[in-house]
Amino acid sequence: MKTYIECIPCFFRQAIEAADVIGVSDKKKKEIINQIAHSIPAFPLTATPPEMGQIIYKIVRTVTGNKDPYLSLKQKSHEQTMNKYGLFMNKINKSRNKLLTAVELAIAGNIIDFGVKNSLNIQAEIEKILHREEREIKNENEKCFQYTLFIKKLAAAHKILYLADNVGETVFDKILLEQIKKKYPEKEICYAVRGFPVLNDALETDAYNAEINNYARIINNGYDAPGTILKKSSIAFQKTFKAADLIISKGQGNFESLSGKKGYPVFFLFMVKCPIVAKHLDCEVGNIILKYNKGLK
Amino acid sequence: MKTYIECIPCFFRQAIEAADVIGVSDKKKKEIINQIAHSIPAFPLTATPPEMGQIIYKIVRTVTGNKDPYLSLKQKSHEQTMNKYGLFMNKINKSRNKLLTAVELAIAGNIIDFGVKNSLNIQAEIEKILHREEREIKNENEKCFQYTLFIKKLAAAHKILYLADNVGETVFDKILLEQIKKKYPEKEICYAVRGFPVLNDALETDAYNAEINNYARIINNGYDAPGTILKKSSIAFQKTFKAADLIISKGQGNFESLSGKKGYPVFFLFMVKCPIVAKHLDCEVGNIILKYNKGLK
Repeated sequence: MKTYIECIPCFFRQAIEAADVIGVSDKKKKEIINQIAHSIPAFPLTATPPEMGQIIYKIVRTVTGNKDPYLSLKQKSHEQTMNKYGLFMNKINKSRNKLLTAVELAIAGNIIDFGVKNSLNIQAEIEKILHREEREIKNENEKCFQYTLFIKKLAAAHKILYLADNVGETVFDKILLEQIKKKYPEKEICYAVRGFPVLNDALETDAYNAEINNYARIINNGYDAPGTILKKSSIAFQKTFKAADLIISKGQGNFESLSGKKGYPVFFLFMVKCPIVAKHLDCEVGNIILKYNKGLK
Repeated sequence: MKTYIECIPCFFRQAIEAADVIGVSDKKKKEIINQIAHSIPAFPLTATPPEMGQIIYKIVRTVTGNKDPYLSLKQKSHEQTMNKYGLFMNKINKSRNKLLTAVELAIAGNIIDFGVKNSLNIQAEIEKILHREEREIKNENEKCFQYTLFIKKLAAAHKILYLADNVGETVFDKILLEQIKKKYPEKEICYAVRGFPVLNDALETDAYNAEINNYARIINNGYDAPGTILKKSSIAFQKTFKAADLIISKGQGNFESLSGKKGYPVFFLFMVKCPIVAKHLDCEVGNIILKYNKGLK
């Protein structure tokens, strides 16, 4: 997805949010804003929003000297989600279609990210997720929830690359990976996190904390954007990406950075968190998206 | 009021909004954004938001070559409000306290500005204003609606300067000026508009269109900020400002630019339109404010 002109005010808003998470002075915040302002003229609208995200969070880290502003929020998200793990598993065990429920949970878990960024009550959001009614798959051609196609692609895939999003959501990812592995034990799965701290996105340590390694090989993309910028990722990650016959891409950041890339078998799983992406997809903020990469449909 | 760090994303949003009113290409919009980004580092947070507003709208006019982007919207606002003039006067005539009702209408009319900027249905907002219940003045110390103090200052004043805000609201100003003149025919009133087009703010021609000249002498401040920047205004305006023993300041832009100026007898009348100003005043967005300048209270 290209950067829309309306994304630009939001870039500044995100920087202020990250500075507020650290709790810095107005002087430091203005320094951050000035540096972002300085980088705007050279940033083309043809680039994707996470490419600017990389610049923004790097400026925040450099100006504040804080290498991982979201560290304690990430720890909190992990604990809050882990505390409910048993309840999520109850929901899965009671479900008539365990894989579908796991897919839904994995996408709904994306709300945690939104909560962290918007001071939502994460506990209340988790309760909402737990009380979602079971989805009926009626219309196979549903525009933004292509579950039948997802199952078909999943069954046919050998090498799966699962692109992680944020901490907390990792616990939901584990639940989905467990269901996939139960149904298809032969699948070879890689779980890719960011290479360096950015926003509340998961790192290798977070993936291990969520015990993802029981179901997938954990790798990192060698880069620090809040999305997947293929050309900037490590060679090892690029190889895994290109070799995968199914890429399960979690979160809006990965969608924004990969949705314009044609020729890759990407399934996007995320919750729509901003009006620009909602307009881009012709859907509503808060919608749950399970959508195959346009270029291959 | 100083510029809060949270105002900065909004500066970019306002520029995009103005560009959208004209209907320019993304390339032009990016050029506008780049120029604003370029001016951010030199803009201190100690300056007031309308000082940045002046820069923003000047950039929009220069890049697009459109000298008055809001011209047709201003004409529409004027017509829509004039069409209801008879109904507003009915409301005044039926009121037990005509001056209070006129003050309330004049502040409530400030919603028109918000409507223009946020694509609200102006007609629906006018209907709401018409159906407001009559306010009971119970608590003389009310924090944000100091009507008793307003009446006291009004009665004592000889030279009144009325600072206009936007077009459409001018019709409500006329209604208030008429009531003031009826009660105090001897008062000498000046009605000051902006010197050049900025946003949907009223110019001399708009004041004459609303027949303000029946009740006040129309002047302009010689400048093009969406507020009152005293040091940048014409000498003639500065003289009138300093000679006034009551300044009735309409709209949030005039509040933002004058609320930090101590030593002037300013009464602010406006509707709170953004969360930053609401926080600054410890009130809610949408509240009606009638408040005396802190410095003199």
